[in-house]
Amino acid sequence: MPYVNIKITKEGATSEKKAQLIQGVTDLLVSVLGKNPQTTVVVIEEIDTDNWGIGGRTVSELRKKG
Amino acid sequence: MPYVNIKITKEGATSEKKAQLIQGVTDLLVSVLGKNPQTTVVVIEEIDTDNWGIGGRTVSELRKKG
Amino acid sequence: MPYVNIKITKEGATSEKKAQLIQGVTDLLVSVLGKNPQTTVVVIEEIDTDNWGIGGRTVSELRKKG
Amino acid sequence: MPYVNIKITKEGATSEKKAQLIQGVTDLLVSVLGKNPQTTVVVIEEIDTDNWGIGGRTVSELRKKG
Amino acid sequence: MPYVNIKITKEGATSEKKAQLIQGVTDLLVSVLGKNPQTTVVVIEEIDTDNWGIGGRTVSELRKKG
Amino acid sequence: MPYVNIKITKEGATSEKKAQLIQGVTDLLVSVLGKNPQTTVVVIEEIDTDNWGIGGRTVSELRKKG
Repeated sequence: MPYVNIKITKEGATSEKKAQLIQGVTDLLVSVLGKNPQTTVVVIEEIDTDNWGIGGRTVSELRKKG
Repeated sequence: MPYVNIKITKEGATSEKKAQLIQGVTDLLVSVLGKNPQTTVVVIEEIDTDNWGIGGRTVSELRKKG
Repeated sequence: MPYVNIKITKEGATSEKKAQLIQGVTDLLVSVLGKNPQTTVVVIEEIDTDNWGIGGRTVSELRKKG
Repeated sequence: MPYVNIKITKEGATSEKKAQLIQGVTDLLVSVLGKNPQTTVVVIEEIDTDNWGIGGRTVSELRKKG
Repeated sequence: MPYVNIKITKEGATSEKKAQLIQGVTDLLVSVLGKNPQTTVVVIEEIDTDNWGIGGRTVSELRKKG
Repeated sequence: MPYVNIKITKEGATSEKKAQLIQGVTDLLVSVLGKNPQTTVVVIEEIDTDNWGIGGRTVSELRKKG
């Protein structure tokens, strides 16, 4: 009964891609750890690039610099 | 001084219901664990059904199948 | 299918109290929001008082001051 | 390679303020714990005042009471 | 630069299994969403079965019932 | 009333360093965003190096390679 939380920047991931990610992560928990898929929960959170920082800079700033 | 994070799918919970949930969870922490309500924080996050997966499927897909 | 994460300071909550809290929170999600208890997950994390701060001080310091 | 998650109420923090917070927290992890800034991630989440509770009340209610 | 948090019950996952899970999740984020693996962070948290509840019962209770 | 969660690898941060980090982060939230320190909560979680992955490798592996 694992719980997985995936945070990514909000940059246009489609519903199809997100569904694929949820399926893939669930499969991994089944194949690697033998978990029950029926109680495996995966939650994706998409974060504005103004609100995500790495190396002390926001992703918005990093994207602008190219 | 507990911190509680509740994640639910975004499917129309009203402000009244959410206020009731916050009050109820705070009361529980007081009655069960003797916590101080004044520093008990409860944060509710509502997640798009495309971004919530269980059993390897998104809730959007599960709702469609009925 | 809600997911609830409760963080408290590690100060001796018994298994019985934690079970009671899990039951109580699950019941609340059923009664207030009509959620399915079978897919409601509650995870309690107990945090060392050295690692919990409020008002800029650790709980370890606050407990010492009485 | 620390990961920092900051949750605040959604009450108009500007991009500039958020960038300043990300820079400040990253600097602290470098100066206090000697962490590598290049792999230090800071994520800010802004929560609706209806969804944040303290003392059993939502921030929306508390703001109304003034 | 995704951040993934995986919570599982503490029931003896080996270092090898956990390394395999970290590699697998990172690969998925690269193949599905085109993310940069170098800044993809995966954190696994293992939770005592007394502290994990599903269906209103702790996993400790559920395991006892067999 | 912000809530801050800091995850770092468990590699010997002292109580003093952690107290300094809690104080520093709280001060930042006051100076940058004008938050009330009395309801600012900071929680530090220290994660085993086997359970932290970056670039698809665990920190345990990365440390061994030097």
